[in-house]
Amino acid sequence: MTRTVLESKTKTVVIGFDEPFCVIGERINPTGRKKLAAELEAGDFSTVEKDALEQVACGAMVLDVNAGVVYNSNPNPNETEPPLMTKMINIVQGLVDVPLCIDSSVPGALEAGLAAAEGRPLLNSVTGEEERLELVLPLVKKYNVPVVAISNDDTGISEDPDVRFEVAKKIVQRAADFGIPAHDIVVDPLVMPVGAMATAGRQVFTLVQRLREELGCNTTCGASNISFGLPNRHGINAAFLPMAIGAGMTSAIMNPVRQVEMEAIRAANFLMNHDSNGGEWIRFAKVLEAVSGGMSFSEASAAQSQAASGRRGGRRARG
Amino acid sequence: MTRTVLESKTKTVVIGFDEPFCVIGERINPTGRKKLAAELEAGDFSTVEKDALEQVACGAMVLDVNAGVVYNSNPNPNETEPPLMTKMINIVQGLVDVPLCIDSSVPGALEAGLAAAEGRPLLNSVTGEEERLELVLPLVKKYNVPVVAISNDDTGISEDPDVRFEVAKKIVQRAADFGIPAHDIVVDPLVMPVGAMATAGRQVFTLVQRLREELGCNTTCGASNISFGLPNRHGINAAFLPMAIGAGMTSAIMNPVRQVEMEAIRAANFLMNHDSNGGEWIRFAKVLEAVSGGMSFSEASAAQSQAASGRRGGRRARG
Repeated sequence: MTRTVLESKTKTVVIGFDEPFCVIGERINPTGRKKLAAELEAGDFSTVEKDALEQVACGAMVLDVNAGVVYNSNPNPNETEPPLMTKMINIVQGLVDVPLCIDSSVPGALEAGLAAAEGRPLLNSVTGEEERLELVLPLVKKYNVPVVAISNDDTGISEDPDVRFEVAKKIVQRAADFGIPAHDIVVDPLVMPVGAMATAGRQVFTLVQRLREELGCNTTCGASNISFGLPNRHGINAAFLPMAIGAGMTSAIMNPVRQVEMEAIRAANFLMNHDSNGGEWIRFAKVLEAVSGGMSFSEASAAQSQAASGRRGGRRARG
Repeated sequence: MTRTVLESKTKTVVIGFDEPFCVIGERINPTGRKKLAAELEAGDFSTVEKDALEQVACGAMVLDVNAGVVYNSNPNPNETEPPLMTKMINIVQGLVDVPLCIDSSVPGALEAGLAAAEGRPLLNSVTGEEERLELVLPLVKKYNVPVVAISNDDTGISEDPDVRFEVAKKIVQRAADFGIPAHDIVVDPLVMPVGAMATAGRQVFTLVQRLREELGCNTTCGASNISFGLPNRHGINAAFLPMAIGAGMTSAIMNPVRQVEMEAIRAANFLMNHDSNGGEWIRFAKVLEAVSGGMSFSEASAAQSQAASGRRGGRRARG
């Protein structure tokens, strides 16, 4: 049974075939967010704080933290990104008690993140590129953490799913050479846009099954890639996620503040028998009721999660 | 390759593993619709006409026709249902050119429907009950039509999916004795409510795969059963349908006038590579835009399908 164990200061999240789908919140990432990038360079972490609280309230079980800003004042990320990663991780784990996913292409930032994170974070990411393998796998071993493995290599991203499977297999084998077990490799089989490649959906479903059955690996993806360039993207995403979950996908790096996608995931958890008695579904239905009543999804989610923690606190106090 | 071929007067619809999901419109059915039942007894077919047009506009590829009214004036359906079935079929096929699904528990009504229907209708249904097998399979053979096979038998509906599989297998074997091929059996593996049975979703996904791989059968279901008794039923249905399609389900008997479910099916078709270039998805996105602008889903669908037939007419005229 493949179980990838992540930890925050006090909480454990397991990515696994018999677990609810693991939602990794993607929003704490300045890539493509100019306003956030400018804030970070100016030392303003208010958006980071808001994104951390909001994503967890909406159902993120893990938070990705990416500090990939190129400063106007210093264009060398090897100098600027490691301290920024440390700072961001300290802020996030001061606010929310969920495992983190340390996301960087800068080696120093990965190591700074590993040093700063409490518990057992997920490292994001290694690829099949030789340089990256030799650089990231020793960190994975040294800190005993799981790692996201993206199935591209020095030849780029193949459109052939069999090639992408072989890249994943190579990463798993190389990790084994370092003493890293397959259950600590979370493979991203790479999701292509179905508008550009008609077989994109089926490729992912087949790959997820193979990665699970042949390599014993958990899987993740950037789910919204599937709908790139299409109208009504949420509708595509909301069908893709349940189908991927049915095929065996166990996590995604995604925006949990999107109601339609989160609704699809919660329904899929229920249908996979990962929501005993439908308790999570019934709670979520109350959030949707509040949304019908005029609240935003994140407000309604926050209100619901505050009410729930109030109830839990009450029970503990009586215990 | 399993292909179940249905025909109307001029159109062919294939239920198959490499075809878009076949939506069988369920609405022309007085069961649980008191107003419709009273209209039918009074000889008023206006709701039947409206339901036929609306369902086809919204995307139904086949229409189920059920004449199961118990008349106040005559409580014997063996006398009243056959002529009503004939009348309803004549009305429906006078309005829309899609294959029909003749739905009755009354033998005379099945035969009346088979005699009245143009093309190659689907017969709904046979079960594993001895009496029903001996009664329905000769009609299936005589009229050379495909049939829906519901996986319950004289012992009732089993909660054990392996038992339901064996019932389906028995029906397929018995049909073979009559010279009816497996590709003309569309199995309904029976969908239980996930609120009452936590394994209900997984049971269906597993059964659909087995029915496909071991018996070579297409499958159908009453999709909305899955969400019976739960809040926000559309959300469950809209995840269940893509997951069932991903597992290999090839049709459902359902209400096509529901936007959320139809959106999920159209997205799933695209993701299964059964919507080349996403043309259907893009057309559907325009319907959703019209809905955002204030139209009802059925109005917007009707407007879109009229525009499409106008364009097709225009092209033919220029040709």
